[in-house]
Amino acid sequence: MALWDGRFSTGPHRALTEFTESISFDQRLYKHDIAGSKAHAQMLGASGIIPQADAAKIIAGLDAIERQIDKGDFEFKAELEDIHMHIESALTAQIGEEGARLHTARSRNDQIALDIRLYLRDQIDLIASGLRDFQRALVHQAGLNATHILPGYTHLQRAQPVLFAHHLLAYVEMFDRDLGRLADCRKRLNVMPLGSGAIAGTTLPIDRALTAKLLDFPEITRNSMDAVADRDFACELLAALALFGTHVSRLSEDIVLWCSAEFAYVELADEFCTGSSLMPQKKNPDVAELSRGKAARVIGDLMALLTLVKGLPLTYNRDMQEDKEPIFDAVDTVRKILAVYPPMVQTMKARPENMLKAARDPALMATDLAEKLVALGVPFRTAHHRVGALVKWCKQTGKPLNGLTIEEMLSVIPEATPECLDLFSPEKSVTAREIPGATGFNEVRKQLDFWEKTLAAN
Amino acid sequence: MALWDGRFSTGPHRALTEFTESISFDQRLYKHDIAGSKAHAQMLGASGIIPQADAAKIIAGLDAIERQIDKGDFEFKAELEDIHMHIESALTAQIGEEGARLHTARSRNDQIALDIRLYLRDQIDLIASGLRDFQRALVHQAGLNATHILPGYTHLQRAQPVLFAHHLLAYVEMFDRDLGRLADCRKRLNVMPLGSGAIAGTTLPIDRALTAKLLDFPEITRNSMDAVADRDFACELLAALALFGTHVSRLSEDIVLWCSAEFAYVELADEFCTGSSLMPQKKNPDVAELSRGKAARVIGDLMALLTLVKGLPLTYNRDMQEDKEPIFDAVDTVRKILAVYPPMVQTMKARPENMLKAARDPALMATDLAEKLVALGVPFRTAHHRVGALVKWCKQTGKPLNGLTIEEMLSVIPEATPECLDLFSPEKSVTAREIPGATGFNEVRKQLDFWEKTLAAN
Amino acid sequence: MALWDGRFSTGPHRALTEFTESISFDQRLYKHDIAGSKAHAQMLGASGIIPQADAAKIIAGLDAIERQIDKGDFEFKAELEDIHMHIESALTAQIGEEGARLHTARSRNDQIALDIRLYLRDQIDLIASGLRDFQRALVHQAGLNATHILPGYTHLQRAQPVLFAHHLLAYVEMFDRDLGRLADCRKRLNVMPLGSGAIAGTTLPIDRALTAKLLDFPEITRNSMDAVADRDFACELLAALALFGTHVSRLSEDIVLWCSAEFAYVELADEFCTGSSLMPQKKNPDVAELSRGKAARVIGDLMALLTLVKGLPLTYNRDMQEDKEPIFDAVDTVRKILAVYPPMVQTMKARPENMLKAARDPALMATDLAEKLVALGVPFRTAHHRVGALVKWCKQTGKPLNGLTIEEMLSVIPEATPECLDLFSPEKSVTAREIPGATGFNEVRKQLDFWEKTLAAN
Amino acid sequence: MALWDGRFSTGPHRALTEFTESISFDQRLYKHDIAGSKAHAQMLGASGIIPQADAAKIIAGLDAIERQIDKGDFEFKAELEDIHMHIESALTAQIGEEGARLHTARSRNDQIALDIRLYLRDQIDLIASGLRDFQRALVHQAGLNATHILPGYTHLQRAQPVLFAHHLLAYVEMFDRDLGRLADCRKRLNVMPLGSGAIAGTTLPIDRALTAKLLDFPEITRNSMDAVADRDFACELLAALALFGTHVSRLSEDIVLWCSAEFAYVELADEFCTGSSLMPQKKNPDVAELSRGKAARVIGDLMALLTLVKGLPLTYNRDMQEDKEPIFDAVDTVRKILAVYPPMVQTMKARPENMLKAARDPALMATDLAEKLVALGVPFRTAHHRVGALVKWCKQTGKPLNGLTIEEMLSVIPEATPECLDLFSPEKSVTAREIPGATGFNEVRKQLDFWEKTLAAN
Repeated sequence: MALWDGRFSTGPHRALTEFTESISFDQRLYKHDIAGSKAHAQMLGASGIIPQADAAKIIAGLDAIERQIDKGDFEFKAELEDIHMHIESALTAQIGEEGARLHTARSRNDQIALDIRLYLRDQIDLIASGLRDFQRALVHQAGLNATHILPGYTHLQRAQPVLFAHHLLAYVEMFDRDLGRLADCRKRLNVMPLGSGAIAGTTLPIDRALTAKLLDFPEITRNSMDAVADRDFACELLAALALFGTHVSRLSEDIVLWCSAEFAYVELADEFCTGSSLMPQKKNPDVAELSRGKAARVIGDLMALLTLVKGLPLTYNRDMQEDKEPIFDAVDTVRKILAVYPPMVQTMKARPENMLKAARDPALMATDLAEKLVALGVPFRTAHHRVGALVKWCKQTGKPLNGLTIEEMLSVIPEATPECLDLFSPEKSVTAREIPGATGFNEVRKQLDFWEKTLAAN
Repeated sequence: MALWDGRFSTGPHRALTEFTESISFDQRLYKHDIAGSKAHAQMLGASGIIPQADAAKIIAGLDAIERQIDKGDFEFKAELEDIHMHIESALTAQIGEEGARLHTARSRNDQIALDIRLYLRDQIDLIASGLRDFQRALVHQAGLNATHILPGYTHLQRAQPVLFAHHLLAYVEMFDRDLGRLADCRKRLNVMPLGSGAIAGTTLPIDRALTAKLLDFPEITRNSMDAVADRDFACELLAALALFGTHVSRLSEDIVLWCSAEFAYVELADEFCTGSSLMPQKKNPDVAELSRGKAARVIGDLMALLTLVKGLPLTYNRDMQEDKEPIFDAVDTVRKILAVYPPMVQTMKARPENMLKAARDPALMATDLAEKLVALGVPFRTAHHRVGALVKWCKQTGKPLNGLTIEEMLSVIPEATPECLDLFSPEKSVTAREIPGATGFNEVRKQLDFWEKTLAAN
Repeated sequence: MALWDGRFSTGPHRALTEFTESISFDQRLYKHDIAGSKAHAQMLGASGIIPQADAAKIIAGLDAIERQIDKGDFEFKAELEDIHMHIESALTAQIGEEGARLHTARSRNDQIALDIRLYLRDQIDLIASGLRDFQRALVHQAGLNATHILPGYTHLQRAQPVLFAHHLLAYVEMFDRDLGRLADCRKRLNVMPLGSGAIAGTTLPIDRALTAKLLDFPEITRNSMDAVADRDFACELLAALALFGTHVSRLSEDIVLWCSAEFAYVELADEFCTGSSLMPQKKNPDVAELSRGKAARVIGDLMALLTLVKGLPLTYNRDMQEDKEPIFDAVDTVRKILAVYPPMVQTMKARPENMLKAARDPALMATDLAEKLVALGVPFRTAHHRVGALVKWCKQTGKPLNGLTIEEMLSVIPEATPECLDLFSPEKSVTAREIPGATGFNEVRKQLDFWEKTLAAN
Repeated sequence: MALWDGRFSTGPHRALTEFTESISFDQRLYKHDIAGSKAHAQMLGASGIIPQADAAKIIAGLDAIERQIDKGDFEFKAELEDIHMHIESALTAQIGEEGARLHTARSRNDQIALDIRLYLRDQIDLIASGLRDFQRALVHQAGLNATHILPGYTHLQRAQPVLFAHHLLAYVEMFDRDLGRLADCRKRLNVMPLGSGAIAGTTLPIDRALTAKLLDFPEITRNSMDAVADRDFACELLAALALFGTHVSRLSEDIVLWCSAEFAYVELADEFCTGSSLMPQKKNPDVAELSRGKAARVIGDLMALLTLVKGLPLTYNRDMQEDKEPIFDAVDTVRKILAVYPPMVQTMKARPENMLKAARDPALMATDLAEKLVALGVPFRTAHHRVGALVKWCKQTGKPLNGLTIEEMLSVIPEATPECLDLFSPEKSVTAREIPGATGFNEVRKQLDFWEKTLAAN
């Protein structure tokens, strides 16, 4: 029997019940639903809308139900539709008529708006903490490799020598922006919607500020129609998570490359890899691959949610029940990544000898030569063209860039000096890059110190 | 213990096992995995690659495992990763060393490619059958309302009178194109990939044609690398399902409008609606709303899948394990819609009196007047302009279009004849539209007959 | 001739030039590119990396080029690839060798990162200002209709009476959150990337803080690899714009409904509508429809951008050139909406008589009756059930809810009092809702005052 | 002056005109619009709805306008909204009142439905032809490398030796499925919608079959409401193009990898690469990168289109004008890729010595050893485990897999025979794989022959 069936002549069709139920996925909200209901009951009692004694009985009943669900001792069934109905039903079954007072001055529309906000507020905090762990693992790994040089890539072509630590810290920066977005999103969702009713508020003299205080919200929503129709916070959160997903997918692409036989810059611990059912020699970087794939999933969740909301008239429409599964899926997916990725990064082993060998390619120092010419007074564009011609000359003659005589170099670059012969070392190249943000040994050490301090404080 | 761990020094990290397992969602493939394995074993035996007796024992063992899973009498655990490993393990546990011969000349890469194709081939057939039911319900409803007129809308503005049956049959057309796309997709996925191995085929003399025959595939894949890397069929299917989703979403939008107090063209059976937890008078068209929302979900699934595949190098990458959940979700979502929507349409009640009242708005016949003028020799653009001016004149003078004297009409439309006064009836308007595809009574009757016959034959 | 062709043996294929050029769309960045180059040149001069006199000459040359482009007196051609190359080429052509010094200590990778940030910083300010105008138009319209009542809808079913002003202010709230997201995004993009070079910084002693100061950036990027690889700010901005798009799409859906003959709550000014090429009577709410459609477009842009970035290794990859068109398209689309929607809202005419007529439906006051019973001590769930039964009784007997005798009401609701007969007025219903955020006359007046003050101050 | 303004009191607001115009992007449809109009006029004349002489004059006028637009001698202006209005206006201006007869029995709703179908039918043919060229370039390249071996990859880990030709032919297969999808889509869009009018057909006795015949359509649409509301064909086409995009993106990822210093399997012609503005040594695979990025763009277009259509009520809504830009963008993007990619593939140079060196890694033959053991009677799972243990043993002892004595091998694999020592050659491994679809020399030669013949015939 549904709680709303007063005006109906027939019960719901079996197919309807199965189609419209949400209990199979919204049961995970029970703690937040109960917390919201307890605050609501306390407020109703304090405001004199229901007897104080009834409020107390309701709260005790809700506590009992929470313990029951905690223990797995609670039956969920499709006929009772959703978590709200389950808990209200159980309450009335347990404590009697007082339970029937709980839903006073409240609709499922504002109730679910509250529940999801409470739930997501918690999830954001958990994800933020996981992101900090991820940063810590990267900074730890960067610290272990503070002086190891590898080629930096653009277009997947070797570009210039960089520190492996510098490369890893780039991801620390990305995750920091992710943390910023999560915090901004949390601020916007941390507003209390209860009291908005189905759409228009209520005629009963509720005290919304008290409910907000009890649930630790700094503010209440200002417009009841907006409050029940709004899913901005979920869209914003999923956008932030999708962006985090792209960051992880880029790190994953890097790790997949680094684990290949061709790059061989990194070895993952055996315990973070799997093998092949057919090929006995395989050891695959599955975590990186799956995480890269999971980025697509979170993007899909965001797409579903934006498309869901698009074009809906005010206020609540039942379509909006479909918000929950993409929200839950995105949050779960990100939390799964955060559970496995940091320990994998923490335990991965750099292979600095392979990195350095690749970085010794003298072409990587071509820019250094051009900049040297600039320091000697050659306009940059001329210098660039000269060095380009030298690269071509070397290719054609088969001579290595770092094996030229001064005469050979002068034949292509008339402005060259003997010092120009001496630039083709990745160590020198890195050493020379000490402006803020660059890959110089000291500058990267400074960044490492900054992050170690920042992360220790958080 | 994993089946591939020969070369590994440590077992998998607990977080890895949880992160990489797919058994929680791929267990639904067990029947198709077993069917594939049985055909594979039979082929291995027939080709002399394994002893015939072993093949027979394997097949019997697989049958027993299938019955066990059917009965819910089979334990799934994350450590065994996926459905393939579960079944192979159980087989070896039950029949001994012969079980260890099953995975000969096969990899999980071609095995999963087979399983999903088998699974989706079945799902397509089920969905196609559901689509036929949906068409039947629409045609039934159209038959009940073969002569009822309502306004046709463009821009949600009343445009011209049309038959309600004509409006419903528009959806029958859409679903027919959906059926066409499903059939085309089925044709492209109905190609047998087993024998592609991990990537390169096998050195053992397998008989792929026999496997294909046993599993009712008309063809085998031509390139082993393509076969294990390809997820086209899933992308194509999800695109077809997303398009079906948009069709349902449009029908849903129509139904939501029709159920509103403002339109009131249709009443849904109580058993296909739900009420409100707060407002006692409410009866909501939830099925239509949720289905409209679920269209967004399938679009999200398609987005996830395309983004997943984009940019992956050949051949198999672990990211591709993430294909399954969007595939399953899209298929399940569409099947859920197909379970509930046809009976709802079948039982909905038209309210022809409200439809007709709306269709009597004489402005809906403005085009008929313009076309009448054309028949009288007025160039269409002039006719259109004249009638537009008449509409404006009526608005300004407060006279109804269908209440003018011939003098009044002539004052704005010098070419008007007395017959022009007589066009403002929706019945006449509909009657006059008898070209193929138009909304005339006879033409729509013809279309109904066509569909009744077509659907009876399928 | 390309500026990078030193090492190449052949010039680019014609198809390559056409495929890779970006000048056809990035020319719109010329002002920001020039502003960035001027600051860069000034810094190079101040740091002694190039002669001060050369810096001055470069700056004067750039000013001249800007005026030339302003006047449309500048030739763009695909061979010169992008806006950076065009301007550097023109500069060298005009001022000679000094121009060849401009690109010192800079790469197109950090240059484009700077240009887009400068461009988007401006666009965000323009969009924010447009959003304020949109809020003003809504508040203006709400002020004109501060006491007009219409039905509030859930599930597109009439739910409870609300003020039209309340409904409009819901959108003001949404746009305010949009403004918050834009401000947060602006904060994160307002960081100066120049000096990051191609990937690793530079060996020349540049002064990044000075460049930042000249371009009014409060901070510089901390990691050169992150700085050239990062497109977070664009993804974040497009997510914010997509969310704004969904808001506009919802308002548009409301307006399309309100303009229908069935609702008829609002009339748009003729000058914001178009007609039909066939049907002379039509007047269509095109702006609302197109804006609803344009929301889909911005969502598509966001999806393109996220998918683009997903799975790219560090650092710059040429794929990232494809970021610009979705960014520009999203920004342009939103600005187009903001140019036309506020004046349309400003000039639309409410039809309060139709609104009120719809709101008089006594079923809309069913919740008020239930809450009255609560005030009389009936537990809410019981009250809800009683009122539901009354609704059914009325439906069955054909009596209107607001036309019952007390005896009739008592026969279904034993707890009813004579006051209960008196609740079926939308005015009373609205009056009774005076808690914060609800739709009461005073509360909505308060909200209007709040917004008028807020918007006057911005 | 708009052609529909009879009933309007004021002209359009300037902002409206700019917002609603489509001429800036739909002008590209002029040839198809004119072709449709000519057929329509001919039919109107033949059916006696307009005088034959007028029809002839209209057709001649349309021909003149087409030549004018061809020559760039035609002014487009926002006030005339769209291509239909431009051509009709120009016609009436040129030939007088007869021009005003053209729009008889037609609406822009069915007119645009016709135009896009005609346009896309042509585009599909052009794209299909480009796809054939792409296949030809791949088959040419495969033919040049018919015996070159490289490692096949799964998880970007070296898996087994495969032929480079086999790898390239995998893409030929994918493009063949793309061609199949295009053909199926063409079949479904090749249905003539004209005569559907705005929504309900027409009262005039038009001959739709004649129009269809004149425009080379095998069928006419069966339901006028569906015909003007339907954008299935565009969604289906964009889904097919998005899938093609993912194929190109995968090939691009392969090519980017192959061009890296680490893989070095392929060298692109200089004329298909660009360099760096900063780093003189760079040569980047831009076409591959940009194409990979453009896949994201087409996915975004598809998402925009599906989201656009989702939830629209029947029939035409102005939102649908927003279909054109994503359609055009997707088609243009794919055609751009098809213009540059085939010649790049045609001219790329394989570096077989690097491929072979990588393929000599003996671990790639581990599966061959396991299958050899199977041939010796060892159950596969046991064989797999034995070989895995051998791999581990080699890793621990530092001995190469292909440098073991028979005693050493027997110590880990008791079933080994001397032949087992002899398997570690990529040539032998490839030679042994001759089942259909596998990578054996003969089998791949057979596939090459098949494709050469197929492509010669198309």
